[in-house]
Amino acid sequence: MSKIAVINPNMSAGFTKKVGDQAKKIVAPNTDIIALNPQFGPDSIEGYYDEAFASVGLLSVIRDLEAAPEQAVDPIGGYVVACFDDTGVDAARCLSSAPVLGLCEAALRMAAAVSSRFAIVTPMAVSVRPLEHLVAKYGAASQCVVRSAGVRTLDFEGANASAAYEALKKQAELCLTDDHAEAIVLGCAGMTDIADRLADELGVPIIDGVSAAVKMIEAMAMLGLRTSKAGAYANPPMKAYHGMFAGFAPQA
Amino acid sequence: MSKIAVINPNMSAGFTKKVGDQAKKIVAPNTDIIALNPQFGPDSIEGYYDEAFASVGLLSVIRDLEAAPEQAVDPIGGYVVACFDDTGVDAARCLSSAPVLGLCEAALRMAAAVSSRFAIVTPMAVSVRPLEHLVAKYGAASQCVVRSAGVRTLDFEGANASAAYEALKKQAELCLTDDHAEAIVLGCAGMTDIADRLADELGVPIIDGVSAAVKMIEAMAMLGLRTSKAGAYANPPMKAYHGMFAGFAPQA
Amino acid sequence: MSKIAVINPNMSAGFTKKVGDQAKKIVAPNTDIIALNPQFGPDSIEGYYDEAFASVGLLSVIRDLEAAPEQAVDPIGGYVVACFDDTGVDAARCLSSAPVLGLCEAALRMAAAVSSRFAIVTPMAVSVRPLEHLVAKYGAASQCVVRSAGVRTLDFEGANASAAYEALKKQAELCLTDDHAEAIVLGCAGMTDIADRLADELGVPIIDGVSAAVKMIEAMAMLGLRTSKAGAYANPPMKAYHGMFAGFAPQA
Amino acid sequence: MSKIAVINPNMSAGFTKKVGDQAKKIVAPNTDIIALNPQFGPDSIEGYYDEAFASVGLLSVIRDLEAAPEQAVDPIGGYVVACFDDTGVDAARCLSSAPVLGLCEAALRMAAAVSSRFAIVTPMAVSVRPLEHLVAKYGAASQCVVRSAGVRTLDFEGANASAAYEALKKQAELCLTDDHAEAIVLGCAGMTDIADRLADELGVPIIDGVSAAVKMIEAMAMLGLRTSKAGAYANPPMKAYHGMFAGFAPQA
Amino acid sequence: MSKIAVINPNMSAGFTKKVGDQAKKIVAPNTDIIALNPQFGPDSIEGYYDEAFASVGLLSVIRDLEAAPEQAVDPIGGYVVACFDDTGVDAARCLSSAPVLGLCEAALRMAAAVSSRFAIVTPMAVSVRPLEHLVAKYGAASQCVVRSAGVRTLDFEGANASAAYEALKKQAELCLTDDHAEAIVLGCAGMTDIADRLADELGVPIIDGVSAAVKMIEAMAMLGLRTSKAGAYANPPMKAYHGMFAGFAPQA
Amino acid sequence: MSKIAVINPNMSAGFTKKVGDQAKKIVAPNTDIIALNPQFGPDSIEGYYDEAFASVGLLSVIRDLEAAPEQAVDPIGGYVVACFDDTGVDAARCLSSAPVLGLCEAALRMAAAVSSRFAIVTPMAVSVRPLEHLVAKYGAASQCVVRSAGVRTLDFEGANASAAYEALKKQAELCLTDDHAEAIVLGCAGMTDIADRLADELGVPIIDGVSAAVKMIEAMAMLGLRTSKAGAYANPPMKAYHGMFAGFAPQA
Repeated sequence: MSKIAVINPNMSAGFTKKVGDQAKKIVAPNTDIIALNPQFGPDSIEGYYDEAFASVGLLSVIRDLEAAPEQAVDPIGGYVVACFDDTGVDAARCLSSAPVLGLCEAALRMAAAVSSRFAIVTPMAVSVRPLEHLVAKYGAASQCVVRSAGVRTLDFEGANASAAYEALKKQAELCLTDDHAEAIVLGCAGMTDIADRLADELGVPIIDGVSAAVKMIEAMAMLGLRTSKAGAYANPPMKAYHGMFAGFAPQA
Repeated sequence: MSKIAVINPNMSAGFTKKVGDQAKKIVAPNTDIIALNPQFGPDSIEGYYDEAFASVGLLSVIRDLEAAPEQAVDPIGGYVVACFDDTGVDAARCLSSAPVLGLCEAALRMAAAVSSRFAIVTPMAVSVRPLEHLVAKYGAASQCVVRSAGVRTLDFEGANASAAYEALKKQAELCLTDDHAEAIVLGCAGMTDIADRLADELGVPIIDGVSAAVKMIEAMAMLGLRTSKAGAYANPPMKAYHGMFAGFAPQA
Repeated sequence: MSKIAVINPNMSAGFTKKVGDQAKKIVAPNTDIIALNPQFGPDSIEGYYDEAFASVGLLSVIRDLEAAPEQAVDPIGGYVVACFDDTGVDAARCLSSAPVLGLCEAALRMAAAVSSRFAIVTPMAVSVRPLEHLVAKYGAASQCVVRSAGVRTLDFEGANASAAYEALKKQAELCLTDDHAEAIVLGCAGMTDIADRLADELGVPIIDGVSAAVKMIEAMAMLGLRTSKAGAYANPPMKAYHGMFAGFAPQA
Repeated sequence: MSKIAVINPNMSAGFTKKVGDQAKKIVAPNTDIIALNPQFGPDSIEGYYDEAFASVGLLSVIRDLEAAPEQAVDPIGGYVVACFDDTGVDAARCLSSAPVLGLCEAALRMAAAVSSRFAIVTPMAVSVRPLEHLVAKYGAASQCVVRSAGVRTLDFEGANASAAYEALKKQAELCLTDDHAEAIVLGCAGMTDIADRLADELGVPIIDGVSAAVKMIEAMAMLGLRTSKAGAYANPPMKAYHGMFAGFAPQA
Repeated sequence: MSKIAVINPNMSAGFTKKVGDQAKKIVAPNTDIIALNPQFGPDSIEGYYDEAFASVGLLSVIRDLEAAPEQAVDPIGGYVVACFDDTGVDAARCLSSAPVLGLCEAALRMAAAVSSRFAIVTPMAVSVRPLEHLVAKYGAASQCVVRSAGVRTLDFEGANASAAYEALKKQAELCLTDDHAEAIVLGCAGMTDIADRLADELGVPIIDGVSAAVKMIEAMAMLGLRTSKAGAYANPPMKAYHGMFAGFAPQA
Repeated sequence: MSKIAVINPNMSAGFTKKVGDQAKKIVAPNTDIIALNPQFGPDSIEGYYDEAFASVGLLSVIRDLEAAPEQAVDPIGGYVVACFDDTGVDAARCLSSAPVLGLCEAALRMAAAVSSRFAIVTPMAVSVRPLEHLVAKYGAASQCVVRSAGVRTLDFEGANASAAYEALKKQAELCLTDDHAEAIVLGCAGMTDIADRLADELGVPIIDGVSAAVKMIEAMAMLGLRTSKAGAYANPPMKAYHGMFAGFAPQA
């Protein structure tokens, strides 16, 4: 009865499948999941530079979905931006009336509901400061710290997976002992399996952003909530776009 | 498959039925809703004084539910505190491992996902400051204002209902024009019907706390999220309670 | 000429006597001290759960004092809530026109007047987060940290007293060296003797909440200051209360 | 038994007498009040420029009092800086071990204890921004606004007194109605008589800074509280001063 | 001796020339100004959606400049992003070691140096919330408000120019009278002529972002300041980019 | 064409020469630098007490410069207060229409433009808290920490210079590793030589306050920016000053 689009803003098809599968596993039986990624852009998102390009990719997917014929009969009820940097979420909210949610926003909301202080553990150091800006934007600066494990996202697959897991776990433990966190938010998409293992080993709630965002947007979609068009998320005013972005010009 | 307890901390049975009915209407088919209120306490909650008594009533209901035999076979997956003041939520989180959510917290989270600035409109002036404290606690102080309509909760039923609605609508309009709010949060439980009418008339998202909290706790329950026992929400340390509160003493 | 009620919200009569004695020692000769505790509730207050019950106990004592015949001829000029969690202070302010002050609020005010950065050291870890919320509510978040000694309140008496003191002192020393605190606030009531010893050994101001609150409320009472009834602390609106709380219903 | 020095940092002898008289009226019978002003500097303090000069005057008075022979036998237990801008308070705390309190700090503390939201009404517009900085420094920015009456301090005496009072009252009323203040702080020293009249006419608590500071410092002095010398308020390091400030060089 | 690149992230060549001319007029004689805009993207930037596309255009210009042969002999000393939304500034800082400055950041810094409270007046309402986020990011939330004139950027040229100016001036006047601003920041690029006229008519400092940013980056360039590569602005980690963004892949 | 006055508020002539020489080295060829210090006051500024006296010295120099006959033909375009505590800057802004800038403000602005997180390293511990207040005042509290090296300013010259440098460098390294700073601000004037050496050894931007302030005020002077006289920095209202400050009375 409800249709949720989970959009991975980077081009890793394996990752898109992973988050799509995870989404399908947790939604209600009558909720449809569409998992997509852009046709252009970076393979992963690590820092401000990658974000700039992935944002456009994200918008391209949403534009196409909104323009598709099936929107008329079976419209999308909500979008998840399947990236923990909440890449392009504000712009995406201008492009659709369906609610849009990033992983970080949703994860922080659920973490705040099950703990009074929590921490984000993210792979790369370069993401710490962008995530701290998100934490501040979402009003959680007084109860959330951000630590990095010093590994790359891809290290969690393949030969380095075990070492990457241990590096992440060590930082999570420091969050509990030194930062007095009571719950851990995984600051990266596609870590559901890690979430379960970490929860077992650490004995505190571990929040996975994909799960949090998919369930929260599903809840909002079922309530019929729509993005406000009365202010910052109004449809973009009509104007000309040129060159390779000509197809993105806002329509009247 | 999931069981959600919606607890009205005041003693108005009519109100309990109302929020229970609303909850049942919006949850998934296999989600059970239990709607209860305490056996003692105030008829409504208007300000800090009423809150103190309603908190104990809330805890009495949770205590009984947690101790009931059916917990062993079909445990409660989450609690909604059906009061916009989030009365007793912190204490309730100490008493159960199931997640606990108040209306204000849930409504602010959904409002922030569909608008960049929003407002709470609440009936009585005496609630403004307690709600502002909640807004600050939930990290939304820079994007949310609180206004009161100058009417009492009960005015929304019976002879004064029309005047009460107009007073509320007038404040909501001021939020849009003067405070640049893009969405309105109804700062009182049991206003679903008002929410729909106001959304039609104002053309912006109207967030009803009961709907927001029930759907968000349902989402969290389905994910199996539990309240952290590692810090502020640890089970209360065992000790003696006396007099009329003897039965509330925390057990080992 | 002035009458101050010092109310211990928990049921430890020994503690009530202790804070009453301490209060009598520091007030002006013509200030009367009444030290009381509720007839029901917990033996001590450690975290949100205990607070909920102790708040009602506190209100029961204030209600009885306000209704006593001697109020007409020799009214109470101010109330001290003798608990460092400032349990029930907001609700108590609604119940009386005499000013009400908790230990934490008073201690933070005096600490800020004799140091530019300070720390609260409290016995149990479970109190850290509630105290941090108070610190934020009182506007001291940028200059005050909270540490816990990992002991229980009762450990400061009897066989464990010496070890408890050393644990507390160790955390206080860390506040000075690592947090650059310039003064220490004792985050628990009834620690006057510890305050003196710690001041001698650490050489910085040690603020005892009971002393701070009793002297500050005495000052306010002498100035004739009364709680404002124009907003959040207005007398609770009249309504019915039921069951074991029937006697607490607000009167017209 | 206690000796309090009330120092007016400007040179108005009439004002010094006024605050001294007010102080004597409200302290305990065995508290001595010394009221002094510098031998040089401005006649009143209106804005940052006047403050710079008045600070040095303030320090000159404290220096002389600290060096006086009677300090050995009957030391000063606390200083009040009788100016609402809290002129020179931080520097004064470096010069003495006795606690030092400005009018603004004390008034905000008492206002916060009797209301949840309050306002400062000050004569001149030029003082608004310096006072807002103080409000932020004292952590009250979320609950206190500042308004000015558009009159000069001296207007409250002589032919303009009535018009000045009306201008002040009008702003105080706007604080109550538009800013939802529940109490009013008089943002200027020497307004005790106005405080009483305004309290009668507005029906909310009116906080006079002189009264608040004198009683709070008396309370701190009686508790034996001393300014911490462990950090920002350490005695100034020894060094040479030259020219007309040679006599102010910090001693070893 | 110094070379500054002023990059207009939108495609209006007229606007690019305008800001380039303005920049040339205010820099030192031996400072070279390069004024450029992207070869693709929107014609103007109004809100989050346009920003996402303009960011990529901005990065394309910087990439080409950094790769140009003349960098080896006469490197660019600093970049100005000639847009008041500071579009893409964080990503641009990852792409070059030369400092990068947006109009909003520079204008707020200069406004704070000549006034204690100021306001941004921007054409469209849709920009208010993004600008408020920038104001908060730059730490000026307590001293800066944002108002919009309700006109579009292009209205300032052609037939509507006079009405647009009057609308802007009216909001600027409200900032002075109602928000107590002491200076006005023009929240849009390319308004130098308006700045001069407004300064004359209002009698307070008017800050033009282009002028502020060009002079501040020139100052930084002359000091040899470089963007730190130790954290959030590190060069983007090497990875593959695909499709129309293939040419933007970060190199080792 | 532009004339900048660099005023050292303390009486060290050697230091005045040093900052003057540094200023001359970095300004444009046609910018005149006047470097002066007061004729009275302390030899250095370490903490709140010294600041109070140095502020008056600073104002005496500005007063004389503003009254000098050459102002009529070749007015000063901007003032730098060559002290990292920004001593007296607010008062100085009331005394002149030319913009006034302290070292801390300018250094923080440039640090924020080249890094997302930075740190101030200052010689003495007594300066940490005053600098933290400045950091908060300038809105950088969420991105800037302050550490002290535990040495005195004068230690950087003569026999202790090497040890002082090492102590400072050690703290700067802790800022990078433990506080995740990406750039270092030298929290003391007259450290240009140290800045260069530290930049070489640490590989991150090192911001020297003198350089930052001189270049930024030069930029503002060239733009013709003047301090707003519409609010907190209005010319001080006319009044009598007495005794040794008689010559500082504000004129009509």
